[in-house]
Amino acid sequence: MIKIKLLSVGKTKEAWLDEAIAEYIKRLQGDISFEFVWAKDDAQLVALAQKEPHLICLDAAGKAFTSEQFAHFLEDQWQRGGSRLTIVIGGAEGLPLQLKAKSVLVSLSPLTFTHQIARLILIEQIYRTHEILRGSPYHK
Amino acid sequence: MIKIKLLSVGKTKEAWLDEAIAEYIKRLQGDISFEFVWAKDDAQLVALAQKEPHLICLDAAGKAFTSEQFAHFLEDQWQRGGSRLTIVIGGAEGLPLQLKAKSVLVSLSPLTFTHQIARLILIEQIYRTHEILRGSPYHK
Repeated sequence: MIKIKLLSVGKTKEAWLDEAIAEYIKRLQGDISFEFVWAKDDAQLVALAQKEPHLICLDAAGKAFTSEQFAHFLEDQWQRGGSRLTIVIGGAEGLPLQLKAKSVLVSLSPLTFTHQIARLILIEQIYRTHEILRGSPYHK
Repeated sequence: MIKIKLLSVGKTKEAWLDEAIAEYIKRLQGDISFEFVWAKDDAQLVALAQKEPHLICLDAAGKAFTSEQFAHFLEDQWQRGGSRLTIVIGGAEGLPLQLKAKSVLVSLSPLTFTHQIARLILIEQIYRTHEILRGSPYHK
C-alpha cells in the first residue's frame, strides 16, 4: 500500500473537484491511499513541509515528464520513501521560495494552473501511473 | 465577441466537468462564447475539422507555451481568424493522423490527459488568456 500525503494551502470547496477526485480515489482503493492536509497560509505550509521525510513539490518551472516518465519517477520516489511520499501544491502565489530552493520540483506543464486543477491533474496522473506500472491499456 | 468552437470525439456526461466548465463559460459571457460539437468517431472528427476555416489541434507533442505565451498565441489566432477559432481535442486514441499532419498543434503538457481533463484545462486557459489580455491579476 502506497501512502500519499498532499499538502496544500487554502482548502477549497468546489463540489465538482471533490466529485472528480473521489472517483480516482475509489479506483485506487487498496493500492494507493491519499491524505489531504491543508495549511492556512504559506508559512504553515513551509512548516508542515519541513517535517516531511520525503517530499516533492509541484512547480511550473520544475522537471517536465511524459506520463510514462512520470510513472517511473513516482515508482522510484515510492521506493526511496518506503512507499510514502508527500507532494506539495503551492497556493495562488505559487510555491514558497523556501520550498523552491531545496526540493525536488515537478512540473505538470509550463502553463500555470489553478491549484484546484493542479490537484485534479496530479491525482489523475497518479492513477495513470498505477495503470502504467501494472501494464493496463488505460494510458494509451 | 470571440467565438470558439470545440470539436471533440465521444460526448461524455461527467457532471463534475459540466459544472466546472459552466463556471468559466459564465465568467466569459459577453466576451467569448463557446460551441461544443461532438463527433461520433475519428472519421467524423476529421470530416468536421476539414470544413473549418481556421483551426488548431491539441496534441501532447505540439508546441508548448507558458500561460502568457498561450494568451498571445490565442490573441494572434483570433486576429487571423476574424474572432473565430476552432479547437480540436482528440479522443482516447489521440489526435487522428490526418489532422496531425497539417494542423497547428498545441500542447497543454508533455503529460497525457484524459480528454475530459484536457477540455477543462483548455477552457481555464482561455479564461486565463482573457484575464491576461485585459491585465487582471487573476493569472499571477
